Amino acid sequence: MGAVSFAVIGAGNGGQAIAGHLALKGFKVNLYNRTYEKLIPIIEKGGIELKGEIKGFGKLNLITDDMKKAVEGVDIILVAVPASAHYKIANEVLPYLEEGQIIVLNPGRTGGALEFHNVIRKRRGLEVVIAETDTFIYACRSSMGKAKIYKIKEVVSVAAIPKDKTQMVVEALNTAFPQFVPAQNVLETSFNNFGSVFHPTPTLLNAARIETTKGNFEYYREGISPSVAKILEKIDNERMMVAKALGVNTISAKRWLKESYNAEGENLYEVIQNTKAYVGLLAPETLDCRYIFEDVPMSLVPMSSIAKEIGIKTLTIDAVIHLASVMHRKDYWKIGRTAEKLGIKGMSVEEIIELVEGRRKEVTIA
Amino acid sequence: MGAVSFAVIGAGNGGQAIAGHLALKGFKVNLYNRTYEKLIPIIEKGGIELKGEIKGFGKLNLITDDMKKAVEGVDIILVAVPASAHYKIANEVLPYLEEGQIIVLNPGRTGGALEFHNVIRKRRGLEVVIAETDTFIYACRSSMGKAKIYKIKEVVSVAAIPKDKTQMVVEALNTAFPQFVPAQNVLETSFNNFGSVFHPTPTLLNAARIETTKGNFEYYREGISPSVAKILEKIDNERMMVAKALGVNTISAKRWLKESYNAEGENLYEVIQNTKAYVGLLAPETLDCRYIFEDVPMSLVPMSSIAKEIGIKTLTIDAVIHLASVMHRKDYWKIGRTAEKLGIKGMSVEEIIELVEGRRKEVTIA
Repeated sequence: MGAVSFAVIGAGNGGQAIAGHLALKGFKVNLYNRTYEKLIPIIEKGGIELKGEIKGFGKLNLITDDMKKAVEGVDIILVAVPASAHYKIANEVLPYLEEGQIIVLNPGRTGGALEFHNVIRKRRGLEVVIAETDTFIYACRSSMGKAKIYKIKEVVSVAAIPKDKTQMVVEALNTAFPQFVPAQNVLETSFNNFGSVFHPTPTLLNAARIETTKGNFEYYREGISPSVAKILEKIDNERMMVAKALGVNTISAKRWLKESYNAEGENLYEVIQNTKAYVGLLAPETLDCRYIFEDVPMSLVPMSSIAKEIGIKTLTIDAVIHLASVMHRKDYWKIGRTAEKLGIKGMSVEEIIELVEGRRKEVTIA
Repeated sequence: MGAVSFAVIGAGNGGQAIAGHLALKGFKVNLYNRTYEKLIPIIEKGGIELKGEIKGFGKLNLITDDMKKAVEGVDIILVAVPASAHYKIANEVLPYLEEGQIIVLNPGRTGGALEFHNVIRKRRGLEVVIAETDTFIYACRSSMGKAKIYKIKEVVSVAAIPKDKTQMVVEALNTAFPQFVPAQNVLETSFNNFGSVFHPTPTLLNAARIETTKGNFEYYREGISPSVAKILEKIDNERMMVAKALGVNTISAKRWLKESYNAEGENLYEVIQNTKAYVGLLAPETLDCRYIFEDVPMSLVPMSSIAKEIGIKTLTIDAVIHLASVMHRKDYWKIGRTAEKLGIKGMSVEEIIELVEGRRKEVTIA
């Protein structure tokens, strides 16, 4: 494969940073955003100014609110929007997808690639590859054509549907970023979703504190007390139980913190208290935040919904989804990624695995 | 009926206060407590010193840890222990109950009288009356034979099983306290339980704040923010929905606050913020508090369990019970008052009403 070309979908924090960084590295990059206003300062500059770990100017090939032009002829489409927008993006990009293109969700949260796949299979016979990562590659903030990359992560797992295309996707991404490594399948990237553990439940269990202090407390170190951590451990166990039933190896949130941050402790509470990266991190300023409106429908709902299909109960996850729904007066069960939206309704474990591995013979298409 | 005599079961805050007050009024009062140590300072004094709204000394007839002696020959047995101890007390007092005695749970929380009734009906043919109140008559604190009564409530509802004994119970209690008025039946006293709305959910949704600040914030005014109040409104709706299905008229928590405290507001949040009695009331210092360990199993569990028997879903109540169970690593569903413990397992609405009204023909006895 020669030098690959990219379309970056979404000019938010992540989209501006990755588009700028790729362009700085010399790749041809188109940047798409649905609202034109957000693009104006970037169009004026002609690209993205990078600060932080990466410094320089990334000149973009095209900056547009026209999806067709954005994706025309590119090799890889990097989707960098909140997971709650994946479904909409899938439908918008569908008519313009070309044979052989690779779509990567950064990250997919839980079921992102499955949901995207379930939309694009409406175009019978179209051969494209859908992939998802388990996390976004940077910690960064962007605004008005200026992106600051605080930290580039060392390892980002990626998996494709069908599974046997994962290696090809990783190789294509590695021409730009060595950090991408292959995961077992999209169930692994979907269930190694630690935001599902750390985001909705502490936010819910600190609801009044967030509203009355505007988030002026340390989210992890004050917001996760011993009793809250016990509930997180249960959520984490439910997540791992579903993953295990699907043949996916996940690690516990406790072990993930230990490995990622060299934190020590007997239980999740202690490990969180000993995670230096969490010192000083404040809570969201409002409950109208991604920790609820993205992580509940796009992480917890698909975990619970997949679990139900294969006969596993996730009572703690379900309780959090319900209370978040009541609190926001939204039905996150309906808004979220259900088994139906993931295209796995009525499937057994074996059938789900066949689907993500690309071995499933399509019988009917909606 | 001549001057009635009392046994007060439980020498806690409420038990010492009501025993002392009744004795001061000239009634013959026995005071029972399971642990003898708690009785020693009271035995040394021979009674209770009263302060606050009621001042004076109430000389007790008998101060004992012997249940048989405590209840022998008395007309009314006032149970003033946490609802979580009702079942144990019922079993302990059962062998010593005498024909015609009245037992009053102060208060019953939800299903107190039903649970007690289900225990004592094991003694076939024993004719006693079980009653419960909807609230305790005082706001008070007691310790070591000294009781301070801050406030005597104006109205306390009481109902008996069977229902047609309620009037007799009220008349007997009125010889001591004019505040007692009859409720429709024990379902009314059980479902007009506002602690079920105001206690477990705000405690759970402020779990980390309670643990990290030792309860150093205003429980109602800071702990119940707009989003928390939305969840309370849903809990309150579920409570009223079950009550309505059982033919019981309840009022909303919002209306109860408006009527009890002359508070104004459009929604529950506003009314709570405008309730002057709540100003300055701090949260519990720990999560190991009655708001969880009494109100979850003795208020929320029976509401949910009765609802299930009659085909009503209480998803929000259930979510709170589940999360409290996970947090305390206790199965409050099992500890709590289930339909089985209330003696209503498998009953229809009509059969439950027949039971509380005393019209139900006993078919089998466990």
